[in-house]
Amino acid sequence: MRQLPQPSTADLDLVRVLSAFADPVRLELVRALAGVREPLGCGVEGFDVEISAATLSHHWKVLRDSGVTTTFASGRNRLVELRRDDLAERFPGLLDAVVADSAR
Amino acid sequence: MRQLPQPSTADLDLVRVLSAFADPVRLELVRALAGVREPLGCGVEGFDVEISAATLSHHWKVLRDSGVTTTFASGRNRLVELRRDDLAERFPGLLDAVVADSAR
Repeated sequence: MRQLPQPSTADLDLVRVLSAFADPVRLELVRALAGVREPLGCGVEGFDVEISAATLSHHWKVLRDSGVTTTFASGRNRLVELRRDDLAERFPGLLDAVVADSAR
Repeated sequence: MRQLPQPSTADLDLVRVLSAFADPVRLELVRALAGVREPLGCGVEGFDVEISAATLSHHWKVLRDSGVTTTFASGRNRLVELRRDDLAERFPGLLDAVVADSAR
């Protein structure tokens, strides 16, 4: 599979990453990804969100462009995973704090 | 001094708090507040930001409305402080992660 373009670890920007997290749907996607160790398919059927495929696709792009996720593509298939190590390197503790929200 | 209206600790919302952090000016304000233990004055002269008083006032309101800060008022004077304990209770580690950004 090929990896879609994404910012380098050094180019990760805190404001941009926070903006990517600051949306209910994207937060749900990030939490779903945080709960598994392997990449997940991008389809609407895989997530507990009530949005169109186009809107979901937009959210995946925001997550990828901000550096929160990596997207792999093979034909029409897309797999997404969190950039845990890159985020931990640049913003220690941030992903854990966002995902852990005890008040969900 | 009287305290301006703000959400209760139980009403703090992660998406709203993340949105409040997700701005370069507000991030700078939060970091300035994190660096001191007492409330700070709200004036533009006190912070390393190049914006108008009106814009700064807007940013303080976003921070207060989201529950990131408490504002105290006495006549025309305004003092602001971080709601460290409330944020730590609801979103453990989040404020530290946002303030600590080693890549500033």
